[in-house]
Amino acid sequence: MSNKAEIGVIGMAVMGKNLALNIERNGHSVAIYNRTSSKTEKVMEDHAEKNLVPSYTLEDFVNSIKKPRRIILMVKAGAGTDAVIDQLLPILDQGDILIDGGNTFFEDTMRRSEKLDASGINFIGMGVSGGELGALNGPSMMPGGQKEAYDQLADIFKQMAAKAEDGEPCVTYVGPNGAGHYVKMIHNGIEYGDMELIAETYNILHNLLGLTVEECAEIFKDWDQGELQSYLIEITADILTRKDDLGSDKPIVDLILDEAANKGTGKWSSQNALELGVPQSVITESVYARYISFLKKERVTASKSLTGPKFNKISESDKKEIISLLEKALYFSKVMSYAQGFEQIKIASEYYNWNINYGEMAKIWREGCIIRARFLQNITDAFNREPQLDNLLLDPYFKNIADNYQDALRQIVALAVKAGIPVPVFAAAITYYDSYRSEVLPANLIQAQRDYFGAHTYHRIDREGIFHYPWYEEQ
Amino acid sequence: MSNKAEIGVIGMAVMGKNLALNIERNGHSVAIYNRTSSKTEKVMEDHAEKNLVPSYTLEDFVNSIKKPRRIILMVKAGAGTDAVIDQLLPILDQGDILIDGGNTFFEDTMRRSEKLDASGINFIGMGVSGGELGALNGPSMMPGGQKEAYDQLADIFKQMAAKAEDGEPCVTYVGPNGAGHYVKMIHNGIEYGDMELIAETYNILHNLLGLTVEECAEIFKDWDQGELQSYLIEITADILTRKDDLGSDKPIVDLILDEAANKGTGKWSSQNALELGVPQSVITESVYARYISFLKKERVTASKSLTGPKFNKISESDKKEIISLLEKALYFSKVMSYAQGFEQIKIASEYYNWNINYGEMAKIWREGCIIRARFLQNITDAFNREPQLDNLLLDPYFKNIADNYQDALRQIVALAVKAGIPVPVFAAAITYYDSYRSEVLPANLIQAQRDYFGAHTYHRIDREGIFHYPWYEEQ
Repeated sequence: MSNKAEIGVIGMAVMGKNLALNIERNGHSVAIYNRTSSKTEKVMEDHAEKNLVPSYTLEDFVNSIKKPRRIILMVKAGAGTDAVIDQLLPILDQGDILIDGGNTFFEDTMRRSEKLDASGINFIGMGVSGGELGALNGPSMMPGGQKEAYDQLADIFKQMAAKAEDGEPCVTYVGPNGAGHYVKMIHNGIEYGDMELIAETYNILHNLLGLTVEECAEIFKDWDQGELQSYLIEITADILTRKDDLGSDKPIVDLILDEAANKGTGKWSSQNALELGVPQSVITESVYARYISFLKKERVTASKSLTGPKFNKISESDKKEIISLLEKALYFSKVMSYAQGFEQIKIASEYYNWNINYGEMAKIWREGCIIRARFLQNITDAFNREPQLDNLLLDPYFKNIADNYQDALRQIVALAVKAGIPVPVFAAAITYYDSYRSEVLPANLIQAQRDYFGAHTYHRIDREGIFHYPWYEEQ
Repeated sequence: MSNKAEIGVIGMAVMGKNLALNIERNGHSVAIYNRTSSKTEKVMEDHAEKNLVPSYTLEDFVNSIKKPRRIILMVKAGAGTDAVIDQLLPILDQGDILIDGGNTFFEDTMRRSEKLDASGINFIGMGVSGGELGALNGPSMMPGGQKEAYDQLADIFKQMAAKAEDGEPCVTYVGPNGAGHYVKMIHNGIEYGDMELIAETYNILHNLLGLTVEECAEIFKDWDQGELQSYLIEITADILTRKDDLGSDKPIVDLILDEAANKGTGKWSSQNALELGVPQSVITESVYARYISFLKKERVTASKSLTGPKFNKISESDKKEIISLLEKALYFSKVMSYAQGFEQIKIASEYYNWNINYGEMAKIWREGCIIRARFLQNITDAFNREPQLDNLLLDPYFKNIADNYQDALRQIVALAVKAGIPVPVFAAAITYYDSYRSEVLPANLIQAQRDYFGAHTYHRIDREGIFHYPWYEEQ
């Protein structure tokens, strides 16, 4: 039948609705379904003129889509996803394609892929970034699963996706099974890092330099014109200009409780880094920064008991210099965060056999997603120069940044530590840089300790083999 | 029959053998068994005069122990443990007590506890620290499980355990099911932190101050007489005096490859901290320091490409001052590591309903285990003063340390960061301190960002409720 919908979307919460409208805007009829019918009715009411095909049972929904069916699930990640899949399986046909566009943990996607493989239904796990507006106007999309299934989705996905400055759509095939959700998880981890770096910078500007919230806004606005240009810097500048919406004359940021919540994706990326042996200190310290923010009651108590350093007021002339150092420190710290994130993607790709094209990941993050930034183009360029690059810091562009900006970061960390302003992520960034460029680390002493108390053995630098030192024999 | 053994040990690798000899030395007959008979035979050959009762089948072993049986499993953690338990279950009787003394992940212990609960067999998951010599001469023991079962073991365990200076045995009932293995996991995480802090200190002494390995040994030896007195400082001093055992005249530490391995317990403790929302940056950075040490090949490449700071040589007079600062910085950083570790135990105890007595944990770590140290007495004292202490830093003794030593740590971090010496854990320690004592953190900006791009809402400081700002409405 020619009047069947070209694609379907299950879940009419804001993300699912906006994705459906995005697809429709690109000239496709879209079947829609929601467990609670009223939501579907509301969408039809609000968008009566759109080419949407509503159904009020899953069977009708499935029957309203042309074969092979393409169905995007936008439901709450977790048990809900399994429930919908279980309901769909008996009524789908071989060759149909299910796409989970939720914020799903990649191991769940791997498990579901394996289960669905046996059924002959294709399964795509797709990370979608960009929030509500991104979903509507063009998100960054990270689909993983069967390549043949992706090929049947590519045209629509490319239409839906955000477009980079050079016109390239921000979507590409990531890799098999959980690869797409994995890359989305790392994206979110990096997002935590970017946000915490901005927060630490703001804290220095506001509480060490004593700038007003409005003055801070101006600085971020200024930086958004330079190499730090990014969505998160842009919205930070905007946020800092906003006044209380409930009537007072205060900046809204001063009225927001300083407890930073999270939805778990940063935690997942750090737990996975620990699992795979990847040093991912920048993102992890960002997660911990949110956790410590949640110990608000303890912090209030501690702030009354625990002293800080004596620190002299900073002169007006020094302030200008520090602001300029901060811009460089922030940029260089971002480099370390992304270097760790991409190293994690590389190690994961090898571990899970995903064969991910690292440069393509930077490319599809250039627009649409929360971490979109001018800076991403430099990462794309780096992987174009050397597709198997071990670490971003080894690329000439980023090495040059390291050469020229490290001093700024060192000065900022030293200054903040001496002044008692917490900079866990700035500090993690510079200590990562210094660890990574150390030919010899004092890990030799740790191996000696392990061998001493636990006979755990060690390697030597001058010969092959495994050695144990006779620590307890007579010398 | 009166000539049955009082207790049994399964697994005659070095830890199991030494625990058996420890029990026997304390006047008990011990049944022993090993899957490979030759190991049991070897133990009997080497210790013919000891009151050991060997068996060569599990049935004979079980029959050789008086009821209710007490059986310690010392087998490789993981699937091996499950296999032995499955073999034992049909031949044990109600009321018998199985004790898993391996380095088991606490969630496995919780799972096994639940399974065994149904069978009527008691199950104790027990962390044992102290390495081979500790097992023989007196380890620190952390048993969790049924309190009634522990009571039937307490006398023997107290005899076996190390004794603190005040004569108290280093064993106590930790809590139900996985509590014992959990506390052992945190112990090991803290051990990672202590070792990395010593390694960073050594790196500064050796590579920034230019002291010889022998001179470093003297410094650690000296510190071992003061408030840093601990097993790990003591063995570090010893290690640094040792020459190559294969003939060269070089210090052995210089010949050991700088790749620090791990057995996973540090990783577990960090993954769990992430899971429970505990800011555990010191231990986690220690785990990452081991991971980055393993990127040896990349580091060698990076060391040739990535530049460090220009840094002036340190004068002889400054060296003495820096050494004195380091002693204080190391001590204060340890405080942060233990503050985080105990905060994690507290949050876990509440989360898993274990009702752990925190002060008792510090008490049983005072001797026998790898982290044993004079310092532990101060933690014991702190919890004696305030059993529900939220964070060690809030205790008067540790607050006083913070007041007086923070400047040393700030100076060391600033110095190392400016000099390009990696200090990930020193830095994590001071940034944790400054975060924890911050009444207001810039997490308010992060909440604003989250609300801006994802409508994640926030709390306000001036009124109750959940708020969302109209970011996209006309201003």
